[in-house]
Amino acid sequence: MKFWAKIEYDGTDFYGFQVQAQARTVQGELERAIYAVTGHRVRVTAAGRTDRGVHAQGQVIVFKVPWQHGLDDLQRALNATLAADVVVREIGEAARGFHPRFSATGRVYRYTLLNRPIRSPLARRMAWQVWPQLDRERMIAATRCLVGEHDFATFGRPPKGKNTVRRVLRAEWKEQSPFLFFEIEANAFLYRMVRNIVGALVQVGWGQLSPEEFAALLPARDRSLIKLVAPPQGLCLIQVNY
Amino acid sequence: MKFWAKIEYDGTDFYGFQVQAQARTVQGELERAIYAVTGHRVRVTAAGRTDRGVHAQGQVIVFKVPWQHGLDDLQRALNATLAADVVVREIGEAARGFHPRFSATGRVYRYTLLNRPIRSPLARRMAWQVWPQLDRERMIAATRCLVGEHDFATFGRPPKGKNTVRRVLRAEWKEQSPFLFFEIEANAFLYRMVRNIVGALVQVGWGQLSPEEFAALLPARDRSLIKLVAPPQGLCLIQVNY
Repeated sequence: MKFWAKIEYDGTDFYGFQVQAQARTVQGELERAIYAVTGHRVRVTAAGRTDRGVHAQGQVIVFKVPWQHGLDDLQRALNATLAADVVVREIGEAARGFHPRFSATGRVYRYTLLNRPIRSPLARRMAWQVWPQLDRERMIAATRCLVGEHDFATFGRPPKGKNTVRRVLRAEWKEQSPFLFFEIEANAFLYRMVRNIVGALVQVGWGQLSPEEFAALLPARDRSLIKLVAPPQGLCLIQVNY
Repeated sequence: MKFWAKIEYDGTDFYGFQVQAQARTVQGELERAIYAVTGHRVRVTAAGRTDRGVHAQGQVIVFKVPWQHGLDDLQRALNATLAADVVVREIGEAARGFHPRFSATGRVYRYTLLNRPIRSPLARRMAWQVWPQLDRERMIAATRCLVGEHDFATFGRPPKGKNTVRRVLRAEWKEQSPFLFFEIEANAFLYRMVRNIVGALVQVGWGQLSPEEFAALLPARDRSLIKLVAPPQGLCLIQVNY
């Protein structure tokens, strides 16, 4: 049987999603749990391979495994076996031909900034603490140019092939002082695209780049223009749309 | 010189605040850092000794140590030495006679509930995940009886002495679905008082206690009536008032 599952994880103590021989990864932990529950060694395929330290609330995976019992039983058994930093939020039977990456029509990421002068023990695993004070209006003004279909070559390399054109449906800031949240939805993302965009937008907020200079990064198609990359702990894959 | 400092910590990896011989504690970590920075072994006194796993955004401490440089230098040096899960948010010279516990006129605690059916890797260190769905209106109705001066003997024992009367200034719920936040401000708290109150209020939210039965817990003055204690990771000392 072929299953899809919606997965949440705290990326702090994983070396990213993708299986590695010597390191603890989310994929490795999921495959270990499936083996422990079903007795079958299977491969898990994901909507997106998040980097080391990046979190997910709504990662989507697919795996094929024989299973005689109900879906609820499978979810309960997996969650009882999985470590505290991963969980199966939803599970279902996957339609024939469904692929978590190729069938996806969009992804939503959120990046969390903590804008205060002192580092935060309570937020350190989930936010990037930045100081001095960010000019939020400048950042919002700069963010507008991202929406639409653009060549994002400046902001990342494609996972495969050469196509660096992506369609951004939504890019917005929300504030809950001292936190700032950047939410971005696109049909797909380049490698490190959100972290590179957030890094440049923080430069805008600090006055190191004008909104116009930020807008000029897109047509430049030059990755060497990225001077500040937002660290992974602020990033979370919120949702995958199909 | 005598200093006060406002401290934030993630309580997850500490065995509580108070120094213990063999275990990692917040007090131990603070005293280690002060020794590393100043070369003096001093004792740190706190507004409240939080339990194992309990967090703080606004714990207040006092310590006496010789120091020739500025306050900013002391804060920077301590924060560079302290582990990632503790930080000095503010620091100042303490007035003669100032005591972090005895001079305090009030404390604010927040308790975080996550009301969803599946455990959460991302919130597990900061919230108590509870299911089934809580009836928020019932919980709000029950909470009202807490405000005012009451004998809270049912909800905890005093740290010292026999006086179990406390004055609650504010007790309220905020929602940011699926999270629920309980904020309570009082002149002082009994040992485990917030966790015992939250446990009983969750029973109200589940229909195991009516708001009237909850209100009857106060005059009963009987700790054995507490059937559900909220776990420590949801609790955070937000502020100490002077």
